[in-house]
Amino acid sequence: MERTVTSVEWVAGKVRFIDQTKLPGEEVSVETSDYRVIADAIRTLQIRGAPAIGVAAAFAVLLAVHDKDIASQQDLEKKLYEAINYLSQTRPTAVNLFGALNRMRRAYEQASSSAMVSIWSHLELEARAIQQEDVEACRKIGELGAELIQQGSSVLTHCNTGALATAGDGTAQSIITTAARQNKILRVFVDETRPHFQGARLTSWELMKQGLEVVLITDSTAGFLMQQKEVNAVIVGADRIAGNGDVANKIGTYPLAVLAERHMVPFYVAAPTSTIDVNTKTGEQIPVEERKAHEVTHVSGVRIAPEGVKVFAPVFDITQNGLVTAIITECGILKPPYVESIAGLKRQPTQAVANET
Amino acid sequence: MERTVTSVEWVAGKVRFIDQTKLPGEEVSVETSDYRVIADAIRTLQIRGAPAIGVAAAFAVLLAVHDKDIASQQDLEKKLYEAINYLSQTRPTAVNLFGALNRMRRAYEQASSSAMVSIWSHLELEARAIQQEDVEACRKIGELGAELIQQGSSVLTHCNTGALATAGDGTAQSIITTAARQNKILRVFVDETRPHFQGARLTSWELMKQGLEVVLITDSTAGFLMQQKEVNAVIVGADRIAGNGDVANKIGTYPLAVLAERHMVPFYVAAPTSTIDVNTKTGEQIPVEERKAHEVTHVSGVRIAPEGVKVFAPVFDITQNGLVTAIITECGILKPPYVESIAGLKRQPTQAVANET
Repeated sequence: MERTVTSVEWVAGKVRFIDQTKLPGEEVSVETSDYRVIADAIRTLQIRGAPAIGVAAAFAVLLAVHDKDIASQQDLEKKLYEAINYLSQTRPTAVNLFGALNRMRRAYEQASSSAMVSIWSHLELEARAIQQEDVEACRKIGELGAELIQQGSSVLTHCNTGALATAGDGTAQSIITTAARQNKILRVFVDETRPHFQGARLTSWELMKQGLEVVLITDSTAGFLMQQKEVNAVIVGADRIAGNGDVANKIGTYPLAVLAERHMVPFYVAAPTSTIDVNTKTGEQIPVEERKAHEVTHVSGVRIAPEGVKVFAPVFDITQNGLVTAIITECGILKPPYVESIAGLKRQPTQAVANET
Repeated sequence: MERTVTSVEWVAGKVRFIDQTKLPGEEVSVETSDYRVIADAIRTLQIRGAPAIGVAAAFAVLLAVHDKDIASQQDLEKKLYEAINYLSQTRPTAVNLFGALNRMRRAYEQASSSAMVSIWSHLELEARAIQQEDVEACRKIGELGAELIQQGSSVLTHCNTGALATAGDGTAQSIITTAARQNKILRVFVDETRPHFQGARLTSWELMKQGLEVVLITDSTAGFLMQQKEVNAVIVGADRIAGNGDVANKIGTYPLAVLAERHMVPFYVAAPTSTIDVNTKTGEQIPVEERKAHEVTHVSGVRIAPEGVKVFAPVFDITQNGLVTAIITECGILKPPYVESIAGLKRQPTQAVANET
C-alpha cells in the first residue's frame, strides 16, 4: 500500500498542498510562494491534522525568508519573526504548530551570524527535518501500534489521522493500515466527524483507496456498535497531549473514550512525540479552539438550522489520561502512569540532532 | 406560549400534515385523502416522532375506510385490514404506531355488527381519542416533568420531541417549555441529531419560536459540555420503552446517558404511556430500524462521502434502565426499579374508556 496522497510538500521553492476542504469530490493542489496563503489554508482547514499543520508552518516560514524583496539579513530576520507571529495565530490547540515554529526560530538563531545563503540552507534543512521526522514517526507508530491489534479486529477511528493529516502515512491510520498489511483488520468503522466530516470525506477516501473495508457511521452510532460488541479497539490521533497524558483531540473523542471504557474496549491514542507538550501539565490547561456558527449551521453551503440560532462549536475535547489504554509514539508505546512514561520518553536521535544543530 | 405547529390533523375528511423534511426552510402543509400518502410520509420521515406517527396512522386508517368506492361492510373491512397491514410496515421501532393500529382494529371489531355509518363514527371517535389523549398526555408530562427541573437549569435534549413529534406540545420538549414558563430554564442545548438533523432543523426552530435560548451543538459536543459542567439535566423522548424500563430512542441517546451518569447529571426520559410496551420485556427485544446509506452520505442532496462507501445507519439505540433517572409519563413519574413502577402504572381513564368502548 503506497501513500495515497501527500498533504504538503516543498517543490522547487514553493509549497504545494492539497485543499482538503474539496475532498473527496475534487483533488485540488495549490502551489504558493506566499506564507500567508499557507496561514489562511491552516485557518480554513484546507491544511489540517496536527503534524501536517506543523510541517506546513515550517515550510511557510521558509517561504517568508525566500521573499525576493529581502535585501539584508535584518530584513530576513524581520520577515521571519513576522511570519512566525502570523502563523502562530492560525489555530490554538495543535501543539505541533508551535513546536515547528519554535524549531524554525531556533534554527535561525543558531545560524544568524552566518551569511544569508547559509541561513537559508540551515532553515531549509530544519524544515525538511521536521517533515522527514514526521514521515519516519508515522512509519514507526504504525509498526509499534500494529503489535497491539489482534487478528480479525474491527477498529473504530475518529476524524482523519492519515496521510492528509501528517507528512507520512498518518498516526492512528498508520497503525490501521500497517495492521491491515498484516491481515489483522476485518473492517474499519469511521466516524463521520461533524461538523467538518473529516471521517466521511477524508478517512473513508484514504482507507478505501488502500483497499480496506470501511463502514461509515454517524458520530453518535459508536455507542450502539459497542453495545453490539462490534468494536475491538478504538484508535484516534491527538492534537496535543499534556504532560500527564490527558489528550486534546477532535470533538467527540472523549465520548468515545468513555464508551470504550464502559464496554472494555481498548482506547489507543497515536501521535508523534512532537504532539506531546510537557509544558502543559494537564488537559485543563490546553486551549480549546471554538469555531464559527456557520460551520455547524451550514453543510456544503446549505443552511440546515434556523437563522440566528446560537451555536457552541468547540473543535476539540479533552480525554483524561485514565481513559487512555496506551499512547503510541514513534519512540515507544506509553502506558499509565503517563506522568512517568512521558517524563521517561527517549526522543529519537534525528529530532535531537535537528534541535541542536 | 402557544403550540408552534400542528404536526398532523383531521380536517373535513382529509388528513393534513406538515412535511417535516422541508423545515425550517419551508413550511409545507400536505392534505390527502389517500392513506398510502400518509404511509409514505411516515416512511420518508415527513411525519415523524413516535406519538405523531401513532396519530397519523389512526387518521390514515380512517381515510382508508372513507374510500368512496366502498360499497359494503365487507369491502370496508377489507380496506381497513389492508390499510392496517400497509401502515404497520412503515417503521418498526416506534410502538405507538402498532398501538394506534391495534386500537383502530379493536374499535372496528367492537362496531363491526353495526351499520356502516355507525362503524365510521366509531372509528372516527377512536382516532380522535388517540389524538386527544396525546394532547392531554403532552400537557400532563410537561406539568409533571417540570417539577424535576431546578431553577436556572441548562438542559440538553436530543432529536425532536416537540409539537412536530406529537399531537400536542411534545414530550421532553413539553417539560422544557413548561419549565421555561416557570422561569426555570436558562438555556437549552440542542443536539443537531445526525443524520436527519431533527435537532438543528426542528427543535431549534420550535424552541426559538417560543422564545427560549437555544444553543445548537453537534452530537459529539455533549461530552465536552458536561466536562465543563454546563448541563444540569438531559431530557429526551422515547420511541419504545420495554417493560423493564430500557429505552429505545434516537441514535445517540445511549452515549448521552452514559456521559450523564459519568458526570452525575440526571437523565430523564419523557413519553406517553402509549410508548411503553410491556410485551417487550427488555431493550434487547426491541427491533432497531436501519436506514439507507444515502441518508448518511448525502446532506441536502450533496454527497459528502466517497461513492460506494458502506454505511451502518441504525436510527435508534437502546439505553439500559440503570442509566435512566426517571421516566415521565402522563400517569406519573416512574422511578427504578422500572419493572415494578411500570407494572404498577395506572393508565388514565380516558384511555381505558377508549380501549373498552
